[in-house]
Amino acid sequence: MTVPSSSRITGPVRVVGAGLLGASVGLGLRARGVDVLLDDASPAHLSLAVDYGAGRPDDGSVEPQLIVVAVPPDLVARVVLAELAAHPDAVVTDVASVKMAPLAELQAAGADLTRYIGSHPLAGRERGGPISARADLFIGRPWVVCGRPGTDRASISLLESLILDLGASPVEMATDDHDAAVALVSHTPQIVASLMARRLSGSTDAALGLAGQGLRDVTRIAASEPELWVQILGANAPAVVEILHAYRDDLDRVLAALGDVDASGARRALAEELAGGNLGVSRLPGKHGQDRRYSPIVVLVDDRPGELGRLFTELGEIGVNLEDLRLEHSPGAQVGLAEIAVLPEHLQRTIEELSARGWRIAG
Amino acid sequence: MTVPSSSRITGPVRVVGAGLLGASVGLGLRARGVDVLLDDASPAHLSLAVDYGAGRPDDGSVEPQLIVVAVPPDLVARVVLAELAAHPDAVVTDVASVKMAPLAELQAAGADLTRYIGSHPLAGRERGGPISARADLFIGRPWVVCGRPGTDRASISLLESLILDLGASPVEMATDDHDAAVALVSHTPQIVASLMARRLSGSTDAALGLAGQGLRDVTRIAASEPELWVQILGANAPAVVEILHAYRDDLDRVLAALGDVDASGARRALAEELAGGNLGVSRLPGKHGQDRRYSPIVVLVDDRPGELGRLFTELGEIGVNLEDLRLEHSPGAQVGLAEIAVLPEHLQRTIEELSARGWRIAG
Repeated sequence: MTVPSSSRITGPVRVVGAGLLGASVGLGLRARGVDVLLDDASPAHLSLAVDYGAGRPDDGSVEPQLIVVAVPPDLVARVVLAELAAHPDAVVTDVASVKMAPLAELQAAGADLTRYIGSHPLAGRERGGPISARADLFIGRPWVVCGRPGTDRASISLLESLILDLGASPVEMATDDHDAAVALVSHTPQIVASLMARRLSGSTDAALGLAGQGLRDVTRIAASEPELWVQILGANAPAVVEILHAYRDDLDRVLAALGDVDASGARRALAEELAGGNLGVSRLPGKHGQDRRYSPIVVLVDDRPGELGRLFTELGEIGVNLEDLRLEHSPGAQVGLAEIAVLPEHLQRTIEELSARGWRIAG
Repeated sequence: MTVPSSSRITGPVRVVGAGLLGASVGLGLRARGVDVLLDDASPAHLSLAVDYGAGRPDDGSVEPQLIVVAVPPDLVARVVLAELAAHPDAVVTDVASVKMAPLAELQAAGADLTRYIGSHPLAGRERGGPISARADLFIGRPWVVCGRPGTDRASISLLESLILDLGASPVEMATDDHDAAVALVSHTPQIVASLMARRLSGSTDAALGLAGQGLRDVTRIAASEPELWVQILGANAPAVVEILHAYRDDLDRVLAALGDVDASGARRALAEELAGGNLGVSRLPGKHGQDRRYSPIVVLVDDRPGELGRLFTELGEIGVNLEDLRLEHSPGAQVGLAEIAVLPEHLQRTIEELSARGWRIAG
């Protein structure tokens, strides 16, 4: 755990828009000693972000090496155009969650796009604004870089250096592939969750009192800001509509089956929809983005200080790395379940060594 | 954390069906010293549950005071009928997640229902079977009791004693209200999640590599067993269909708006759907069974053997017990985030001691 002693980029980096993402970029760069020049249309946002240590107000006295445009999706093209014009030597990127629409707008405006590269960090929080900003917001997260034919390689390298300095992983992807991907993994889930949550509005407290973790998980992201999401969905509408149509076709099949569950084939149709869900969720990658699956082991852990520490110390002694971990603990219980995941080739040895050391393995 | 010294019910309690719920009822009652008589159509399930300490095989030598029927929804009515006939002095309950359909079946069969009370503990896990059973499965969870006009008050009290002995909270609810409530908080979310997960099947690994916690949360319950869910959904179809129709109406409004986002009113329609989701999710009550909240701390952990062990060992040295833990790790990252939860009164000291030992605390 070494504290970073230097940055890959030399700076200064100009950050336009001091909300959650912009201020987090600023905080992360400042932690590495990079000079960050902040700008925001809102003086209140700007001074808050400066107070938080995300950079200093840009007084125009130095020219930035790289500009990060972190404004709402609807404003991206306009601001990028202005930045390209005002800073003729700087590389400009934006961090909006849609990439086709701003690019089309920039192309329509006849902008010289050799110095512009759209990008998108897959990071965020339900709460927005500079006060939610974190220097570590991007650590370990993918950050998509949408190079195009003719994009200057040195500009891409500079952007990748920024991404690496912030602890994220650069992922190259074509602009249209990016928008199709986020339509699936982010935009459609947002709609699905919001519409489910909307059904709760008219319900009774007694019914909602029966809610468990399942409903909470399904609807958690429904707490997101409508204003921002109208912009995102509006800017990626065709890709989202395509997925939503397929979703509605499945929904209609479920409705037809539930409308007459005793009809021939109805239960089978339901089972197929549910099994399709099993298959889909199993495709979500675990850590490391690898295709191989990890083997779970459930260990019983007494509920007292140091027990988990002993477990993980001994796993370290055995020489096994944890690929994933989940602790389950119920209020009032004397024992918890630590579900650990190891590489399949380590499974047998891990179980044997843990058992030999007196750990109780469940299931 | 006192060990219960006695139970409210005297027993014996007969449990029919030694799966997750039945075996958990057995374990919970055995922990209070209640005599539990187990039965299961599968000898393998039965002996496994006995080995786990969930009770003893019912040899018919003693008469039960109370019978808990914990079989799949499709079998409930048939088994309840048989139990009422075989044990003329016992109160009989079942724990299935739908209550109207079995009751209708029992009434159609002309059963004497004065000794039968349908009930439903809102507890479960993604994995079923006796090996997933836990004595603490019901602690802090609501357990719905569906009394009917004419139900014997003493029978209800006996059932409530069982529920309290298992650490759950009895909630009286009319049978139809129960089924409408679970259609909303459990059955519809299952469909919504499964259909979203189904969309992932045909996607590329590159797209799925961008998935974040939002998609994971929305689709987590899509891993549930199709066989069980076909039974549940089939038995509660009318209530689920009503909600799904309203859901589809909203979905159609979203599709219409996204089909022409620049049309007059389109963005407003989108915003209203999303704001409706905000409102709905805000109505969900806080966590069940926990009167105090825990304070989260996010610690950065290098991805190598022994690092988590070192963290937990040092937490043990500090003398702090973990109340909850969640590990977050992104594809390709060299560092993970361990979100640990401690009692609020330990928060400040834990942060100070961990920082002093060189751990990086995020946020």
